[in-house]
Amino acid sequence: MELWYTEEHTENARFSIKVDKHLFSEQSDFQRVDVFESYEFGKMLTLDGLMMVNEKDEFVYHDMIVHVPLASNPNIKNVLVIGGGDGGTVRELVRYNRIEHIDMVEIDKMVVDVSLKYLPITSSALSDKRVDLHYKDGIEFIKTKENEYDLILVDSTDPIGPGEGLFTTEFYNNCYKALTEDGILVNQSESPYYDRDIREFKRSYKKIHSTFPVSKIYQFHMPTYPSGHWLFGFASKGIDPVENEKINEWNKLGLKTKYYNTDIHRGAFMLPNFVKDMMNENE
Amino acid sequence: MELWYTEEHTENARFSIKVDKHLFSEQSDFQRVDVFESYEFGKMLTLDGLMMVNEKDEFVYHDMIVHVPLASNPNIKNVLVIGGGDGGTVRELVRYNRIEHIDMVEIDKMVVDVSLKYLPITSSALSDKRVDLHYKDGIEFIKTKENEYDLILVDSTDPIGPGEGLFTTEFYNNCYKALTEDGILVNQSESPYYDRDIREFKRSYKKIHSTFPVSKIYQFHMPTYPSGHWLFGFASKGIDPVENEKINEWNKLGLKTKYYNTDIHRGAFMLPNFVKDMMNENE
Repeated sequence: MELWYTEEHTENARFSIKVDKHLFSEQSDFQRVDVFESYEFGKMLTLDGLMMVNEKDEFVYHDMIVHVPLASNPNIKNVLVIGGGDGGTVRELVRYNRIEHIDMVEIDKMVVDVSLKYLPITSSALSDKRVDLHYKDGIEFIKTKENEYDLILVDSTDPIGPGEGLFTTEFYNNCYKALTEDGILVNQSESPYYDRDIREFKRSYKKIHSTFPVSKIYQFHMPTYPSGHWLFGFASKGIDPVENEKINEWNKLGLKTKYYNTDIHRGAFMLPNFVKDMMNENE
Repeated sequence: MELWYTEEHTENARFSIKVDKHLFSEQSDFQRVDVFESYEFGKMLTLDGLMMVNEKDEFVYHDMIVHVPLASNPNIKNVLVIGGGDGGTVRELVRYNRIEHIDMVEIDKMVVDVSLKYLPITSSALSDKRVDLHYKDGIEFIKTKENEYDLILVDSTDPIGPGEGLFTTEFYNNCYKALTEDGILVNQSESPYYDRDIREFKRSYKKIHSTFPVSKIYQFHMPTYPSGHWLFGFASKGIDPVENEKINEWNKLGLKTKYYNTDIHRGAFMLPNFVKDMMNENE
């Protein structure tokens, strides 16, 4: 027999992965949660039928969401992670001794539970004593926070379903308020390739751009996400992620990484013209 | 009814594209040649069942194979294109007034013929009077050339089938001999993601690295190629593609491009650690 997982990147383009076993499948209060054992990508976690993480290329996403802001500001001590239930983002964060405290706010406890069971590769550091895990809605959690975090990482699903409220102006305003003066917001910003992803990328960028003095986009190669061309937003009250002499200090930390380095840090902000055009467009 | 084109990226991962019409299908002397009309990617040309070009993202590949070397050496006048039967590479080359002559050596006339018929988006400039089209084997063609070309572009299929001889040490030695002192070789270098592509990337890089004083790798986002993470090799007798003050002169030309700019030129050479590790490995 053959068992194939198929994800619709659009209604006219599909990516299919040969699966050995369907290890877990349940409907949580928020979404359908599945875990598969695949031949090409190892174990994979999908939410509502969309690839979230797999053992083959999760390192790209987690390197780029964490090390870019951490190299941009060597004084980050308090971090808020919204989403990130698989634990990969926290795993990279706890490698920094300087980080004192991490609030991780994941709306769906089932995502954390299955990651702890099936994906030790990403969830291994969730028990770090600096981590406080909150099973709450990040949109509500952040409303009462002021001048508290040096870094907010929005490690969310797409803006359809539970992730939707994480792509609103109100949420970005609350992030601004919750950040310290040197604070940085990094958010999952979709992709510039397929129409639906482009629309969400432009909407989110436009809102952040009108909220933060500094707002940039950086790109990376994420083969198992639609098109493989994926984006993060970098926003701050003043810190620039490229024109920034502190970046090279990161190399003194001696952290071993499979994707990130301080060259690709700078290179990731060098964008193709068609992506820059999307950023400049008025909707 | 529904009609789907499926490409096996590996035996355990497949990419499928919904097709409106199968416009052309024939076995040439060298390979199976197909043209499809698709909903997401417009017209697409496949060879032996592998995506070569489509109307949606061909601009990425052709921008990056042509403008990177042309910006690295503003004195390029004589060019050899090996492969490139769809014409997209020549289309970008003829935008430069300084280019005096282009030899394009495509082994398979059928690829050019179907491109002229179905893909004017790429083939439109093949009639430029500076272009000499040779329906020959590039491996043989180059053997007799000496100190003749300022640029050789290997715009080939994968190293299986007719493209195989374009990935050998003998061929790279002949390229070296055929290039002028300031000459540059750019070659399709596969991808660092799936095992088979990694193997070919490493083999080709290793051979070029031992043939040319300068040999580097640059990357780009090519969503319809396996993994979307694709590479070109840049080799020369001395010209560096990054430490090179002449790159900015390119902006004076006023060429409008959808992917390439002189920032992404530099950014493309900034590689993830896992790609650098592959380059440093001994086989």
